Amino acid sequence: MIVLRHVIGDELRRRRQDQGRTLRDVSAAAAVSLGYLSEVERGQKEASSELLAAICGALDVPLSDVMHSVTNHLVAAEHPRLAVHAN
Amino acid sequence: MIVLRHVIGDELRRRRQDQGRTLRDVSAAAAVSLGYLSEVERGQKEASSELLAAICGALDVPLSDVMHSVTNHLVAAEHPRLAVHAN
Repeated sequence: MIVLRHVIGDELRRRRQDQGRTLRDVSAAAAVSLGYLSEVERGQKEASSELLAAICGALDVPLSDVMHSVTNHLVAAEHPRLAVHAN
Repeated sequence: MIVLRHVIGDELRRRRQDQGRTLRDVSAAAAVSLGYLSEVERGQKEASSELLAAICGALDVPLSDVMHSVTNHLVAAEHPRLAVHAN
């Protein structure tokens, strides 16, 4: 089964790493603990809607943009032969 | 601020009502309590990834399909002049 928090966590980590930023930097900017952000990125903890918004804010990416990527990954996982744009 | 659980809740309720199904029916099919499903639909409670998957299963819709609609609503809310397909 596809677990949404795993896909969201992977996407948040990818975005952070693409920006060359550390867990410490982003967690401070989002006002969440480093341990919490790390657990969210590893898919070990569900991010509440408010904290997900804060993390997106810290990454300076719209929530819709992150969820668009997440949806693409879900499509790729659910329909491996149909997905084309799973970035 | 856009709250993801509100958008997810609205979408789950819309899908259920479009199918002409009751909270009782879908909560039983998803093996979640009626009160829990009702709170999720009203955006009062975060659905865990596992329970969101169970609710989608009960509605017989792929999670990716629900999240696609959710993403469209997020885009419409964040960029009201750009969104075209917020179904």
